[in-house]
Amino acid sequence: MKNSPQAALTTLRATRPLVHNITNYVVMNFTANALLALGASPVMAHAAEEVDEMVALSGALVINIGTLSTPWVSAMQQAMQTAARLGKPIILDPVGAGATSFRNQVLVQLLAQATPTVIRGNASEIRALAGLTGSTRGVDSTDSSLQSIEAARILHDRHGCVVSVSGAVDVVLDGKQVALIENGHSVMSQVTGMGCSASSVAAAFCAGGGSMFEAAVAAATTMGVCGEMAAERSTLPGSFQIHFLDALAEISPELLTEKAKIAWQEI
Amino acid sequence: MKNSPQAALTTLRATRPLVHNITNYVVMNFTANALLALGASPVMAHAAEEVDEMVALSGALVINIGTLSTPWVSAMQQAMQTAARLGKPIILDPVGAGATSFRNQVLVQLLAQATPTVIRGNASEIRALAGLTGSTRGVDSTDSSLQSIEAARILHDRHGCVVSVSGAVDVVLDGKQVALIENGHSVMSQVTGMGCSASSVAAAFCAGGGSMFEAAVAAATTMGVCGEMAAERSTLPGSFQIHFLDALAEISPELLTEKAKIAWQEI
Amino acid sequence: MKNSPQAALTTLRATRPLVHNITNYVVMNFTANALLALGASPVMAHAAEEVDEMVALSGALVINIGTLSTPWVSAMQQAMQTAARLGKPIILDPVGAGATSFRNQVLVQLLAQATPTVIRGNASEIRALAGLTGSTRGVDSTDSSLQSIEAARILHDRHGCVVSVSGAVDVVLDGKQVALIENGHSVMSQVTGMGCSASSVAAAFCAGGGSMFEAAVAAATTMGVCGEMAAERSTLPGSFQIHFLDALAEISPELLTEKAKIAWQEI
Repeated sequence: MKNSPQAALTTLRATRPLVHNITNYVVMNFTANALLALGASPVMAHAAEEVDEMVALSGALVINIGTLSTPWVSAMQQAMQTAARLGKPIILDPVGAGATSFRNQVLVQLLAQATPTVIRGNASEIRALAGLTGSTRGVDSTDSSLQSIEAARILHDRHGCVVSVSGAVDVVLDGKQVALIENGHSVMSQVTGMGCSASSVAAAFCAGGGSMFEAAVAAATTMGVCGEMAAERSTLPGSFQIHFLDALAEISPELLTEKAKIAWQEI
Repeated sequence: MKNSPQAALTTLRATRPLVHNITNYVVMNFTANALLALGASPVMAHAAEEVDEMVALSGALVINIGTLSTPWVSAMQQAMQTAARLGKPIILDPVGAGATSFRNQVLVQLLAQATPTVIRGNASEIRALAGLTGSTRGVDSTDSSLQSIEAARILHDRHGCVVSVSGAVDVVLDGKQVALIENGHSVMSQVTGMGCSASSVAAAFCAGGGSMFEAAVAAATTMGVCGEMAAERSTLPGSFQIHFLDALAEISPELLTEKAKIAWQEI
Repeated sequence: MKNSPQAALTTLRATRPLVHNITNYVVMNFTANALLALGASPVMAHAAEEVDEMVALSGALVINIGTLSTPWVSAMQQAMQTAARLGKPIILDPVGAGATSFRNQVLVQLLAQATPTVIRGNASEIRALAGLTGSTRGVDSTDSSLQSIEAARILHDRHGCVVSVSGAVDVVLDGKQVALIENGHSVMSQVTGMGCSASSVAAAFCAGGGSMFEAAVAAATTMGVCGEMAAERSTLPGSFQIHFLDALAEISPELLTEKAKIAWQEI
């Protein structure tokens, strides 16, 4: 990697990118607070009448299908088309992929509108989207990473985008390289919206330009390191989520570099 | 009661039930975090295209009418029918019953789709749904419990379901027995979503099977005991809500048994 | 001013006004918790079938356009008409005014339904609504206050309502007088929903009757003083928002008077 997560965070703080989120109701508040704490600006807008203008104002677009309905799907399609036309990064979070046929159909529709810059989800969502069956539950982390790499490679080959998979070890992959990020803490799975926030944080880094692979690595590393910082203060889920927001504000480029555990290789 | 709340909590932690919530916008985040902290898994989905599949995947369904609109009412009806057909527990939270004629009409419609397993609300909602007029405000807790029992009995006789009423003393009633639960703390009424979370926690316990009366008692007791544990750390509402989520994660079967104040009798 | 913020807070605590919020998804939870912590009662309802009854039950109405869509705009129009007919205070929060043409059009439509009692927004929103162009970013607080006064005066002259502008110095203005409030802390801009909550807190004070100018001043002062109290405990954004809710519960009329920094003059 040419640029470190440290450099990406410095850019993010200096530019304060506006991130347009069309996301689910459950996580809107936490996502907005996560972006603000990190140093980005959130906006949420889903009306057909204004999504084009909002995309144009923003540095990146997040599409998160957590609480779908037909009008929202239309707005997501429109926003993705506009973002693609304007060259804005698109981060797609396939929440609950594989859980219902409606979600799977919507994902097909969305992926037909525009190629996302980054597809970011957890291991089971990424595997479902890749068409791989079987649960990763109970599989140990080494095998799980291999499975995530397999699924990410399929999605990359199909769509030509960066794929970021969260898990005990996070995997970020594009056609030439893969990064394994060993930061994070298990309590993160006990707080709603951590994955959704990871997608919005990825958008904030992608808005800074440069390598989208490196932006996705910086985002996953930032989430993981801030998770560790928060877990040092409390591993109880209520307190943890507050400390996590604090950590997003506290994380410095230097701390990020010091604590990052990234294994990177060409493929 | 054959089984203690302790046994119900042990089952919940072991089985990690998926709870499908069609609930209001205000409490979605807190409800999801409460379920995760306790050891259950939340899902929120309200699209007509996917509610049937999501009900089928879930261990129980929560219907909460806090921020109604026509498309959501349709989804609620559909989900209740599917849950009834599949034999999944349905927990109905009649938020704001009696406040507007629309809410009252929707409740009639919902109750015509399927019989809930548990109707859970606060005293004024349960009294309104039972057709009793008059506020319980200012009434002391003893009288209030008697009023809740009266309203719960009417609803039970009409619908044949368990009725759970929150208040200074919680009341859980079915046709054969009533439990009075004296756990809880007054600061709980200063935090939004405590009642709504109580309904989702009830769903998590009902998903474990067995007696639905005992599941509702276990849920009300868990909420009350966790409220007491949190109030020992802070009775200011911001801090309290964080400590409450922590307490849901910390509560053990042993602590629950030790702190439970349940008076139970056949009727 | 005849009545101090102290008197207004005493009234609020004694009357526990019901505040009807038609607001955005992002801030609903935080807004409801802020109102509860302060001593008011929140309700959120946006269905055409019930907004009239809910307005009639409430002491004041908040219209916040943060996450617009057509059905919500209809409900907002209907609620404003009903509130005007019933003489209930209306607080309009023009979130994101100027960002998209849709928001600007909706604001024109809303302002054609009824005259708000208070228009409350941040400096750039109020300037956009007043038709003034140019960003206030980077302008120091003195100039910023002068710019806010200019914009507020235009809106007052056009609509005849109180205008409340948040910023480093808050400005509240009606046709006869202006108040500059120097309370608050910069971390407030790193937490989502502080402005939206300020509008709902203004509604809670307006529900108490008397001078709407003084109610708006009391609300802005309460927000600012509670922000200072919370910032004394933590200036990290996650912890701050929890301490802020605590401060809303802790603030007493005496503390409010002691800490208020209000400069008031006739104009």
